Amino acid sequence: MLGNFCYANPTRLYFGEGSLKYLPEELAQYGENVLLVYGGGSIKKNGIYDQVLAALKASGKRVVEDAGVMPNPTVQKLYEGCEKVRQNHIDLILAVGGGSVCDYAKAVSVSAYCSEDPWEKYYLRMEDVDNEIVPVGCVLTMVGTGSEMNGGAVITNPDSKLKIGHVFGDDVFPKFSILDPVFTYTLPRHQMVAGFFDIMSHILEQYFSGTDDNTSDYIAEGLLRSLIHSSRIAAEDPQNYEARSNIMWIATWALNTLIAKGKSTDWMVHMIGQSIGAYTDATHGMTLSAVSMAYYRHILPYGLPKFYRYAVQVWGVDPQAKSEEQVAAEGLERMEAYMRQLGLVMDITALGVTEEMLDGIADGTFIMDGGYKVLDRDEVVAILKESM
Amino acid sequence: MLGNFCYANPTRLYFGEGSLKYLPEELAQYGENVLLVYGGGSIKKNGIYDQVLAALKASGKRVVEDAGVMPNPTVQKLYEGCEKVRQNHIDLILAVGGGSVCDYAKAVSVSAYCSEDPWEKYYLRMEDVDNEIVPVGCVLTMVGTGSEMNGGAVITNPDSKLKIGHVFGDDVFPKFSILDPVFTYTLPRHQMVAGFFDIMSHILEQYFSGTDDNTSDYIAEGLLRSLIHSSRIAAEDPQNYEARSNIMWIATWALNTLIAKGKSTDWMVHMIGQSIGAYTDATHGMTLSAVSMAYYRHILPYGLPKFYRYAVQVWGVDPQAKSEEQVAAEGLERMEAYMRQLGLVMDITALGVTEEMLDGIADGTFIMDGGYKVLDRDEVVAILKESM
Repeated sequence: MLGNFCYANPTRLYFGEGSLKYLPEELAQYGENVLLVYGGGSIKKNGIYDQVLAALKASGKRVVEDAGVMPNPTVQKLYEGCEKVRQNHIDLILAVGGGSVCDYAKAVSVSAYCSEDPWEKYYLRMEDVDNEIVPVGCVLTMVGTGSEMNGGAVITNPDSKLKIGHVFGDDVFPKFSILDPVFTYTLPRHQMVAGFFDIMSHILEQYFSGTDDNTSDYIAEGLLRSLIHSSRIAAEDPQNYEARSNIMWIATWALNTLIAKGKSTDWMVHMIGQSIGAYTDATHGMTLSAVSMAYYRHILPYGLPKFYRYAVQVWGVDPQAKSEEQVAAEGLERMEAYMRQLGLVMDITALGVTEEMLDGIADGTFIMDGGYKVLDRDEVVAILKESM
Repeated sequence: MLGNFCYANPTRLYFGEGSLKYLPEELAQYGENVLLVYGGGSIKKNGIYDQVLAALKASGKRVVEDAGVMPNPTVQKLYEGCEKVRQNHIDLILAVGGGSVCDYAKAVSVSAYCSEDPWEKYYLRMEDVDNEIVPVGCVLTMVGTGSEMNGGAVITNPDSKLKIGHVFGDDVFPKFSILDPVFTYTLPRHQMVAGFFDIMSHILEQYFSGTDDNTSDYIAEGLLRSLIHSSRIAAEDPQNYEARSNIMWIATWALNTLIAKGKSTDWMVHMIGQSIGAYTDATHGMTLSAVSMAYYRHILPYGLPKFYRYAVQVWGVDPQAKSEEQVAAEGLERMEAYMRQLGLVMDITALGVTEEMLDGIADGTFIMDGGYKVLDRDEVVAILKESM
């Protein structure tokens, strides 16, 4: 049954090769002071930086740079970005990069004019935004997080080893995002496939809940089938535009609130993965892949009919002459084979996790309800051990 | 391959039983003069009118009524609505009804301040809107058209027997729509199932084009599977909230631009159906059902691989030991059986079409390209004859 909800998604998307040409008409809607946010500088090597800067200059903008956003943006970096926004009376934050850069931009947008410590207010206490929000636009160069069309922003505090995501309301969604699949071509293979699994995890973590009949699950199955098909092609041929463009579009719809409608979610793979990320600084998507098989095999008995449906509808398992358990297990086997074929990291040891870290990672895992099984701390530890 | 596009969908949706309670907070954002648009008065019998009027009064609005919107809103009615908007300095047009009422409200919203004849400018010449647009909100009481979250508005000119839909841009989308599945319960069975097929036709007419691999088609398949499943339940048990709520949500996503992304479309079933509607005033969904089987069987040879995929993915046809043609034909047979089971009108004679009308209907059919076969006039006549 579809529960009650509000749907509002105000982000304007420009999609396709060459879509950066729409940046000037968006820039024209904002004041002259632009904070240009990016990461480690790969956009300078692949030429995207030059293209964006040319558009900014041609639009008469005064550009303040905020470079060096790290894969897991820190609270210290957040404070620095807020200071830059205030000192320069920033009218628009333009994020050029992947999910970390977009997340960081949104975190700065809500935090710059927060009258108290934004980490305390928006992350530890998860309060609603009640201060001025600086508008954000994105030029996406890496797919996976869906950050280009949602209100989420994950920030990490290295001191307390906490990596926390806050899902803000629709006024924190980017005002516009530019999605050119060609901009994602230069990403190293390891990060590309990690992004593919991040997308898959987003869909699965919304799919695996509920015993009702919900249209959102049918849409999720469509997205999953398209993702599996296109990611297999892209893994072999990263410059296949058809595959990369489909994946870029799937990533956006995997986490822009649509397939969560009428659903409950516990996001436990992300909760465990984020805690691993706070300990290891591993690539986000790989923290998810490394724990997923242990997690899904652990919860399978609590959501057996859905795992059966997943096997048949998504992985094409033939259910004839098999028990429900056999069909469900075969679905997960096919998923695991697909993951190994992509070259995903399948254990947390490979991410640098040691036996000594397990207690800390378990302590840093936020346990949520909304899925098929509310985990306890012992189960989190067991899943981590199974994932080593 | 996903072609280039812009996606912008600014409508805010309130979904679920009791969601009319959000109307006052939306009303607070507009001035005091509200044009209350509705149809033949069924909302007075089922109590929705009283609930809406109470919310309007409590919000301090001055209400101007514009009742009697017919199933195929006429250009004459459009002129009258425009006059009411101008005379009363309307700040918000509130449509309470189904697709015809919402379409009419949007047509009035773009036409009221048009400096020339809006039928000429926006329908015959299909020009872009360059005048003031009066904001529209919707309270939906019948599902099918998707009008609650798109910029489309179909208007009929009975004198010239032309029924034309113009798809306006995102600034003509309703600002908000309230979707309570319970509001759709009192609809007569005939209209309910006609709405179900309208939804199916929207999805199919976007699905059947292209030879590329496009995520939109996977999403369309998910929506179709959910629609077939829920509509079978709702046809037996119209007050099944789970089924009716899923169908209401599918209807919205079937025609809010999402599944058209990267696709071309010719909308030929709608083009033929709309011309029949101009001659017979038949229920819209039934004009589509009555010509669909003849149409799809006619174009099947031109899009065989897609009809094969449709049979397997949507209708669960087992392809083993069958030719591609056999699988594709079996898919259409299952579709026809489903349609007959729902009780849809399967021939145009039952809609009042006579042999003498066929030339006129063919002349009034706009022939578009973008599908698997650009029809010529003779083919339209052949499809009509096959549908008698």
